[in-house]
Amino acid sequence: MSRSMNPEVSTITIGVPDWAWEAGRDLGPLPLPEQQVEFVLGLVARNIEDGGGPFGAAVFDAHGLLIAPGINRVVPDNAPIAHAEIVAIAAACQRLGSWDLRSAGSFSLVTSAEPCAMCLGATPWSGVSSLIIAARDEDARAVGFDEGAKPDDWLGELERRGISVTRDVCREEAAALLAGYALGGGIIYNGGT
Amino acid sequence: MSRSMNPEVSTITIGVPDWAWEAGRDLGPLPLPEQQVEFVLGLVARNIEDGGGPFGAAVFDAHGLLIAPGINRVVPDNAPIAHAEIVAIAAACQRLGSWDLRSAGSFSLVTSAEPCAMCLGATPWSGVSSLIIAARDEDARAVGFDEGAKPDDWLGELERRGISVTRDVCREEAAALLAGYALGGGIIYNGGT
Repeated sequence: MSRSMNPEVSTITIGVPDWAWEAGRDLGPLPLPEQQVEFVLGLVARNIEDGGGPFGAAVFDAHGLLIAPGINRVVPDNAPIAHAEIVAIAAACQRLGSWDLRSAGSFSLVTSAEPCAMCLGATPWSGVSSLIIAARDEDARAVGFDEGAKPDDWLGELERRGISVTRDVCREEAAALLAGYALGGGIIYNGGT
Repeated sequence: MSRSMNPEVSTITIGVPDWAWEAGRDLGPLPLPEQQVEFVLGLVARNIEDGGGPFGAAVFDAHGLLIAPGINRVVPDNAPIAHAEIVAIAAACQRLGSWDLRSAGSFSLVTSAEPCAMCLGATPWSGVSSLIIAARDEDARAVGFDEGAKPDDWLGELERRGISVTRDVCREEAAALLAGYALGGGIIYNGGT
């Protein structure tokens, strides 16, 4: 098989576009989960407009100040691991200069849809103390996304690690964004064969 | 709380050191799982020497040619998501210019230890068709690493997605590297509180 191959990759790069940071500048604190989810759903809508995937996330501190936004970068960055939650976690950690957010305070990870198996697994490693979720797993699966195999009691597993979970925040609006993306013919990556 | 914060992170970066690529140059094909695992265990030993974590991984093509090495970069890159498997997957995809390795052929992900919950979740998203594992989950947990909450039947879940799994390749040697790291006082990150 002939195959084109780029040079050795000395640095893996995943972009966090300026518009995502711009959306958070001069925002002031967003202490309520609904406010944080609304911010994240704004990222989703904009990312879809730009041809990206219909998922967004963000890390906020205990006062509701945005530390880092995250959007899905799978397709533009050739990075199947660049889900919105992974991007938000990595951007927050690199901004705070820490590989464990617990060392820097108390932070929440806010996401437009229930994390897939990979992102659920990443959540405890990030050191966040809470997880706030808009759409449910079944809302993502309903439009064709594969969420992966999760532990049956993933919610209890997170809570046993000291991570509180809040679900269904603006769920209908979040599910409508997913459905609109699919109706618009968006790529359903990670959709299996 | 006062907190030092870096500027907005326009690009998340995760390094793949030149020595990891160097180890694979002029290597020729390594068609056997044992050969691929030995290569990965060599990465682990060198990464520990350099003060890194005791985990390594690599993506090989169907002929046993190295596409990308992966080492744990959690601490040096302030990236809790930069486990060896994630690094190998992302480096392979960015090298091949694809967000789904299925589109580029048939590839194996080889890892020095059973993937944690996050890396198991990432495996189907990468598009690899096989997963080759050295140490078992319990070998990593025995020295204090938290592997996260995995689905009870993670092996069956991967196989149902068309990913074959081979375990216990050079397991004793891999477990000994983990034990040696812990005895040497290495950081046990992702170890919980």
